Amino acid sequence: MTKKVVLAIVFCIASTTAHASDPLMEQVRQWRSTHEPLIVRQLSEFTAIPSLAGNAPGLVTMARRLQTELSQRGFQTKLLQAGADEPPVVYGELDTPGARRTVVFYAHYDGQPVVRAEWETDPFAPVLRSGPDPKSPDVDWSHQRPPFNPEWRLFGRAASDDKSSIIAFLAAFDALKAWRRSPSVNIKVFWEGEEEPGSPHLADNLRQNRALLAADLWLIGDGPMHQSRRRTLYFGARGMFDLRATIYGPIRPLHSGHYGNWAPNPAYLAAELIMDLRAPDGSIRIPGFDRDVRPLTVAEQQAIKALPPVEPSLAREFGIAHGEGDEGLTAGTMHPALNVVGLQAGGPARAIPATAEVALDFRLVPDQTPEHVREQVEKRLQDLGWTVLHAEPDAATRSTQSRLVKLDWGHGYPGYRADMSSPAARAVLATTERAAGGPVAVLPMMGASVPMYLFASQLDVPAIGLPIVNHDNNQHAANENARLQNLWDSIETYAAMLGELNW
Amino acid sequence: MTKKVVLAIVFCIASTTAHASDPLMEQVRQWRSTHEPLIVRQLSEFTAIPSLAGNAPGLVTMARRLQTELSQRGFQTKLLQAGADEPPVVYGELDTPGARRTVVFYAHYDGQPVVRAEWETDPFAPVLRSGPDPKSPDVDWSHQRPPFNPEWRLFGRAASDDKSSIIAFLAAFDALKAWRRSPSVNIKVFWEGEEEPGSPHLADNLRQNRALLAADLWLIGDGPMHQSRRRTLYFGARGMFDLRATIYGPIRPLHSGHYGNWAPNPAYLAAELIMDLRAPDGSIRIPGFDRDVRPLTVAEQQAIKALPPVEPSLAREFGIAHGEGDEGLTAGTMHPALNVVGLQAGGPARAIPATAEVALDFRLVPDQTPEHVREQVEKRLQDLGWTVLHAEPDAATRSTQSRLVKLDWGHGYPGYRADMSSPAARAVLATTERAAGGPVAVLPMMGASVPMYLFASQLDVPAIGLPIVNHDNNQHAANENARLQNLWDSIETYAAMLGELNW
Repeated sequence: MTKKVVLAIVFCIASTTAHASDPLMEQVRQWRSTHEPLIVRQLSEFTAIPSLAGNAPGLVTMARRLQTELSQRGFQTKLLQAGADEPPVVYGELDTPGARRTVVFYAHYDGQPVVRAEWETDPFAPVLRSGPDPKSPDVDWSHQRPPFNPEWRLFGRAASDDKSSIIAFLAAFDALKAWRRSPSVNIKVFWEGEEEPGSPHLADNLRQNRALLAADLWLIGDGPMHQSRRRTLYFGARGMFDLRATIYGPIRPLHSGHYGNWAPNPAYLAAELIMDLRAPDGSIRIPGFDRDVRPLTVAEQQAIKALPPVEPSLAREFGIAHGEGDEGLTAGTMHPALNVVGLQAGGPARAIPATAEVALDFRLVPDQTPEHVREQVEKRLQDLGWTVLHAEPDAATRSTQSRLVKLDWGHGYPGYRADMSSPAARAVLATTERAAGGPVAVLPMMGASVPMYLFASQLDVPAIGLPIVNHDNNQHAANENARLQNLWDSIETYAAMLGELNW
Repeated sequence: MTKKVVLAIVFCIASTTAHASDPLMEQVRQWRSTHEPLIVRQLSEFTAIPSLAGNAPGLVTMARRLQTELSQRGFQTKLLQAGADEPPVVYGELDTPGARRTVVFYAHYDGQPVVRAEWETDPFAPVLRSGPDPKSPDVDWSHQRPPFNPEWRLFGRAASDDKSSIIAFLAAFDALKAWRRSPSVNIKVFWEGEEEPGSPHLADNLRQNRALLAADLWLIGDGPMHQSRRRTLYFGARGMFDLRATIYGPIRPLHSGHYGNWAPNPAYLAAELIMDLRAPDGSIRIPGFDRDVRPLTVAEQQAIKALPPVEPSLAREFGIAHGEGDEGLTAGTMHPALNVVGLQAGGPARAIPATAEVALDFRLVPDQTPEHVREQVEKRLQDLGWTVLHAEPDAATRSTQSRLVKLDWGHGYPGYRADMSSPAARAVLATTERAAGGPVAVLPMMGASVPMYLFASQLDVPAIGLPIVNHDNNQHAANENARLQNLWDSIETYAAMLGELNW
């Protein structure tokens, strides 16, 4: 081995975890290293577009931009809408002569709402910073020559969730084209604009476009990589179901001295309601709730056991002593969850509040359904003496019923786990391992929710998750960010999916 | 009985509950009926001054205005301050030649904080309305001739709590003067500007001015009348103790899908903390907590039994089916209370919050002390596995301890119950009954907190509460208001205290 070769290998290990032996990966890496400013500029431009739920103009601007990006690359494109109020799905297709398989690349271009005050800087004026701390120095990258420091991160809403996936796909496609490599599969693209509010139109959209979307596999480009930073695949995802509970006390706030100990206190009742539904270990206090939970297969259990342990380093990163249960992170997230994501009652004065609000977030697993969970929760609360309402209580209800709670159920959908032993699943795993040049973190199911169940239920096609961004991207929170090394790695993984996947 | 007399009696019953037989009361009523616009104007002017905790200029403006009012009436006045950060106490005195007794009239001129958005109109631009509903029509009273409709109410912060008491005192004094009636007691006035934040300087102030404040009795002009609208006396008040608990989860909000079921959720832990301290019937879940509670005397129990029942009408008014316990309102408020007055966690995104805040409000009864309650609460939480902190946790604490809660104790003070059988107490009751022309609601202890214990502990003088405003005044909440009939009644009661009280 010459000195030159040794140095080349050291460089590769330092800048990426991929190995140097795959010729396609070499070509992609070379292309990327000279195009880093362009890639960052494009992610920055995408992030600057405020494509958030409730901001229709921002969503439409983003959809049109993505349609243009695909058209310029030779895709046949179309905007799909299952209803006038659905942000358009950006659809594109590109046939590969001679390809046997068709793969749909899914991502979403909408982001979570923001609380501006919590952000270090404007979530729609993206900033490249030298590290994960939002107070770390800005990088004036537009005057920097590549290679960029791979630890730099672009801060902005949706920079990681999920615009990085779209950028990775486009860059991988461009790299293949630059090297005149033909794709190994027929390519379809399905970029949704309504994932964050729970994809309420997705089922209709898939059903209405069944023929257009005919394919052998969906690759779901969403979610973060495993915390070990290993390339990651997930073969399922938990479903979700939002619940906002409003608990009613007196019709107006009452002085807590005069009436404390007599007038029912909705802020106190909020605590009762939470404890009526959830135990300290995170389990859900509804008799029979687990009856719908499909047990893990042996292969799924083995995949979890094979994951590198991340809990101690995560506990350090998150500033906690230990996790809630005894099982570890991934095993723990195989269960249904009930998260308290919001509490609101009272104000600055010493008063018994008129109402209290509890925002809950269920995460469902196969084979639970939102319908059954709703039934179970409402029955449980009624059994415990709650008066369950679905509208504001009227005077007659207030005067005769106690423990009044209004339940506003949001959109929900079930969880999903694909068969990890199918030919498509094995091909995706093998291709990812080849691209990574090492072991891949295999999650039987991601803790977070992606509506993967729909592809199976509406189209009878398996879906596999191909997450790319850093786990510490502050997803759904302030100061969301995308780490460059993850973007570089993912361009390679996407290039492998576009250029080498087959079965 | 002539026809004319009958009509006069009917009029009196309609406009006031006082009888017509007391000559002083007749004089006061006559004076008031011609001065109604002036009285309302003065209450409106007082209410317009934003004398709230934290607004030093508003507090000083109000204090100076009150000092001027007293000086103009011939009082010797002084502003008392026990510390530079104490809003000045407005002190005044006026000797009555030949009087045996000296009575201090206490009230406070500060108001609770406001949440402007919850108010129908500006809390500092007082509006007279035709009824209790803040949406009821405004009354352009400045062009109306008396008598005013006694059901009209003036809306504004502190209009009832506690500026009405000050207005009632001044008007009663003016009425006596107009009729050239000499007071029956030496008069001292002590108007505090720091009651709402818990009177943190009051003890020092009393101690420093012990000689100046020499007296036989304090009359505490604060709080609402009994809900039956009977003239009311209270012979004690619960103490108070604020507690803000901050519960710590991960150091930053975490995606509730990826980490729900593993990362400790402070919003969930907030519910546990509340349930660790308080039972559904309102009792406090601290072993031995009641050991400091002084039992009610037979006379106190009888006074409670003699109160007209108000619970059914209050339940209707408040839009609740029934009270929290089985004992009824007044009996219930003889116990210590733990009120949840605020909850705050999370935001719009589906995330495990980094912290949750619970605002608690203890109401203490004799012979509890804040110091012992604090000890009991902290020990209870520690016994249940909480790590009790008094500052933000550092990294070492976070990484080794779980169930982290920071307790910020506010200012607190004990409850108080005076001896209802003392000569002063009996004289006050008899004078009030004479002024009312009927039975008086006697509360051994008010549920709300007034620092009555201080007068006994610092000055060795009994304190008796003389509340005047309508119970439905929205005290401490939005749309606070003062009902005119209560103001009219209270001018008579104050006139009796100034002109007839003796023992």
